[in-house]
Amino acid sequence: MRDVAIIGVGQTKVGEHWDVSFRHLALYALQAAMADAGVAQADALYVGNMLSGAVEGQEHVGALVADFAGLRGIEAFKVEAACGSGAAALRMGYVAVAGEMADVVVVVGVEKMTDALAPDTTSALAMAADADYEAAQGASFVAINALLMQRYMYEYGYSRQDFAPFAVNAHRNAMNNPNAMFPFPVTVERFARAKMICEPISLLDSSPICDGAAAVVLAPAEAARALSALPVRVAGSAAGTDALALHDRRDPLVLDGAVVSARRAYEQAGIGPQDVDLFELHDAFSIMAALSLEAAGFADKGQGVRLALDGKIGLEGPVPITTMGGLKARGHPVGATGVYQVVEVVQQLRGLAGANQVPDARIGLAQNIGGSGATVITHILERME
Amino acid sequence: MRDVAIIGVGQTKVGEHWDVSFRHLALYALQAAMADAGVAQADALYVGNMLSGAVEGQEHVGALVADFAGLRGIEAFKVEAACGSGAAALRMGYVAVAGEMADVVVVVGVEKMTDALAPDTTSALAMAADADYEAAQGASFVAINALLMQRYMYEYGYSRQDFAPFAVNAHRNAMNNPNAMFPFPVTVERFARAKMICEPISLLDSSPICDGAAAVVLAPAEAARALSALPVRVAGSAAGTDALALHDRRDPLVLDGAVVSARRAYEQAGIGPQDVDLFELHDAFSIMAALSLEAAGFADKGQGVRLALDGKIGLEGPVPITTMGGLKARGHPVGATGVYQVVEVVQQLRGLAGANQVPDARIGLAQNIGGSGATVITHILERME
Repeated sequence: MRDVAIIGVGQTKVGEHWDVSFRHLALYALQAAMADAGVAQADALYVGNMLSGAVEGQEHVGALVADFAGLRGIEAFKVEAACGSGAAALRMGYVAVAGEMADVVVVVGVEKMTDALAPDTTSALAMAADADYEAAQGASFVAINALLMQRYMYEYGYSRQDFAPFAVNAHRNAMNNPNAMFPFPVTVERFARAKMICEPISLLDSSPICDGAAAVVLAPAEAARALSALPVRVAGSAAGTDALALHDRRDPLVLDGAVVSARRAYEQAGIGPQDVDLFELHDAFSIMAALSLEAAGFADKGQGVRLALDGKIGLEGPVPITTMGGLKARGHPVGATGVYQVVEVVQQLRGLAGANQVPDARIGLAQNIGGSGATVITHILERME
Repeated sequence: MRDVAIIGVGQTKVGEHWDVSFRHLALYALQAAMADAGVAQADALYVGNMLSGAVEGQEHVGALVADFAGLRGIEAFKVEAACGSGAAALRMGYVAVAGEMADVVVVVGVEKMTDALAPDTTSALAMAADADYEAAQGASFVAINALLMQRYMYEYGYSRQDFAPFAVNAHRNAMNNPNAMFPFPVTVERFARAKMICEPISLLDSSPICDGAAAVVLAPAEAARALSALPVRVAGSAAGTDALALHDRRDPLVLDGAVVSARRAYEQAGIGPQDVDLFELHDAFSIMAALSLEAAGFADKGQGVRLALDGKIGLEGPVPITTMGGLKARGHPVGATGVYQVVEVVQQLRGLAGANQVPDARIGLAQNIGGSGATVITHILERME
């Protein structure tokens, strides 16, 4: 096993890309990442994607994207783990390079959700939950998260309004991210008036349906300096799983998959939460942000919301989260999200996060969640001095 | 990089499993493989599957199957490459073990095609082709293969009937496979009378829509002897790609992805076609069997059908193919097929193929194809003396 570095990153703006095809989205992100890395070829391509079948009527996107990006011939597969697909694909790329099975691997997360063929995108997203025991009972994805949020409020005595800081922070950070879908401010007052989607989840607790693609280029760390002026080392990479259906979990308010995944990544990196300078967490709904902070060791059980209320999650705080807008305000093109998170951590560690730069960021954590917590992939990235 | 062995295999019967759920199919194959290997735990699970979203309304089957199989917590992803998904998942497992990133990895290929939610399974299968430039023009998967077969007949002067030996051989071999869907004989006369599906492809050129699951357990070869009485070494593992759409290929009658994939696997194993004792090829349609024989080096261009006509593909011939019935007669549960092929090669190398035993089989080749040749994964397996 050898050290792996990220030597190039690329992304498209997140939004409703009615005029850009699925394959073009993937291409643009890949081209940007490969240009950034200064490489024209790769040994393998892994595509993170969840909904190409349901939304585009297209599977087999590994070969499709490889050919369209000028990489015809190389190994190319799609890796899927619902909304965790992006980081799952990255994890496979990491495994290939770390294990010396490949030298240069490109990973792209791509999702086009606005073209929905299937009844609608909400139904397609329900495929991340248990089709027989959740979706078939009518539970959409927002409904499942609403159950979680309701339970969290009941157990720990929070109000709906206590979740406002997550949206306020994410939108504030998105304002300085040219690739964010919603670069406008949200106030606590506006949060209070937000339209209810599924009690107690409002519009401003929810990430949007959108399109986007992000890509990274991986190479052995020992070769990275020669290839990149600003390489970033992958210090930890790990995945964990939990029951797919919420009702099968040991404790619905503990993301066991995230706990396991974070612990494995921390152990590999030889660090703990106290060493992390920023945390790109999976705020698909604000309840997920709270539970992620707890599962990754930044807050005790029931204290994730408290951390946000106490003003600890801002760029200058001890636990900066969603520094470029997060899923809430950068956007959540589901199978692409895990790669966007990592691209943003790399921007921070390179010192290229502009107005949102976390001072002297050295170690960043990215955690991508599939479903309501059934698959969780954690990556720890470290600036190479 | 270290040597990898298969220490356990399992499969369900292929057929129309109206009374068995998707998760149960996967479970049965996994349980059989893990019992065969004598292991109760694993470091990771990779699931090969193409159609769970379209047919079952279920994505995120990595976590689903892991939990249902008693492996909650471990890394688990779905790997997709259309009809090549099974071997793609196996390839990811191989990469993880060979690169010392995992010790025991379980791989299951599972597909349930008969439950179709979407308009129909034929439409779902068309997602393996180019959605914008093939499927949107009305080209179903059988139509794409019919174009290929028509062109092959035109270029090389064969008749439709010349393809009969592929079906005859596959069905004869299926008669001794208790897991085959169609264990009955097909004669050349019956082939001549077969119902036309899409000129020149008849029912007896075509693999069926069906359900099934197959699984393998991978471990380091050095540990394999202690774990298994009959381990089989993975001597070569490689993937290759080509353009997704037929009309974008360099030469539609050459499976460039298969050529590349086979060459890489041969190089890794240090062997050539002349060293192969049996070849489990991807006979989704009989034209694919002919093109596979050519791409993998067993016949010159245009001579794949000739090889079959000359009686070379039987169990006693120089190039035994589809020894347990192949996709045609064992069945082709698409995302599971690549794992079935490998399970059958293992049966042969273990000397446990019963009446279909290839005498003194030492080296077997399994080649799994996604789409009409856009993704091809080749595995070379070798008996451990």
